[in-house]
Amino acid sequence: MPVLPEPIHNLIHAFERLPGIGPKTASRLTFYLLRTQDDIGEELAEALVALKSATSLCQVCFNITLAGQEVCEICADARRDDSSICVVEEPLDVLVLEQTGGFQGKYHVLHGVLSPIDGIGPESLKIRPLVERVKNGVIREIILATNPSMEGDATALYLRQQLLPYGIRITRLARGLPVGGDLEYADQNTLLRALAGRQEMS
Amino acid sequence: MPVLPEPIHNLIHAFERLPGIGPKTASRLTFYLLRTQDDIGEELAEALVALKSATSLCQVCFNITLAGQEVCEICADARRDDSSICVVEEPLDVLVLEQTGGFQGKYHVLHGVLSPIDGIGPESLKIRPLVERVKNGVIREIILATNPSMEGDATALYLRQQLLPYGIRITRLARGLPVGGDLEYADQNTLLRALAGRQEMS
Repeated sequence: MPVLPEPIHNLIHAFERLPGIGPKTASRLTFYLLRTQDDIGEELAEALVALKSATSLCQVCFNITLAGQEVCEICADARRDDSSICVVEEPLDVLVLEQTGGFQGKYHVLHGVLSPIDGIGPESLKIRPLVERVKNGVIREIILATNPSMEGDATALYLRQQLLPYGIRITRLARGLPVGGDLEYADQNTLLRALAGRQEMS
Repeated sequence: MPVLPEPIHNLIHAFERLPGIGPKTASRLTFYLLRTQDDIGEELAEALVALKSATSLCQVCFNITLAGQEVCEICADARRDDSSICVVEEPLDVLVLEQTGGFQGKYHVLHGVLSPIDGIGPESLKIRPLVERVKNGVIREIILATNPSMEGDATALYLRQQLLPYGIRITRLARGLPVGGDLEYADQNTLLRALAGRQEMS
């Protein structure tokens, strides 16, 4: 390894710790920041410092919100449907669903999925507060929007068992071929689910 | 666009300003940093702040060096060959060449290439100091290692003209097929250069 000044080495190393950023990209970003006249590096540093100090979790749905706000903007929005709750794994999932504009209800963020191998049981997730919301609230439908993965499915199954006693509608996002996809490139499982879930044309 | 707390929006925006990082990756990195228990964000912020304040340019070769150091580690290294200088566009190119371990001489970083469209003429680059080094020094060979692009070639051509009067050897990195490459996937220009530069098998 050739001699690199320490500040450069440190920044390359820091970038490398981010997911999906390898040594080449880390070097490229670092040397880009060295070269640029802009304040990109300063802006990024400030935003990083502010990230954790200026945010907290909504006390209702556990989505990210501004520090000091007890309830997030979505939970506080009276125009949104209180009776329908979409349960997701991560705050990023809320963002992705909001961008579709297809859901007018409220959310509940689990902050993970059940994964016994990693020691993540029901107590590590925001499951008890969800059950409390269902118990106390006006909720009529829970949409389980955990990822279509093994852990996501297991978590959805567990949640269904927990919520069944309350007599509400419990749904899961549809599986099938992605829009714009190609039958030829679909994996077997997706194709099986698409076949099993086939719908009448009207 | 849905409501995102401002600190999150700011960090996504700051990541997006980096080259090669789009909105999806920027969101993913931001929410990863929110979720992680590590000090990755803090480390990155510190490294970013230190980057420009703790580095400066070597007064001989214009590579990046520690602030306060007049001459970089490579230029200061007495074991390296003073008579051979490798001219590159960017500090990152020095790193890449050093990693090969195939060059024992010294470097000269131009900090860009000639690009009249962008208003970058010879005066914007570290060309005059290179000519001075050749004039005063013990240099016997200049390796022009600018990129094999149109601008890199034009810059190499210009440098050759400037350096010709000093009667030193002026070379350019070889063109041809990349090692491990496949004839089938090589572009026409590379194939033409590989043909023209064919070498006797010994």
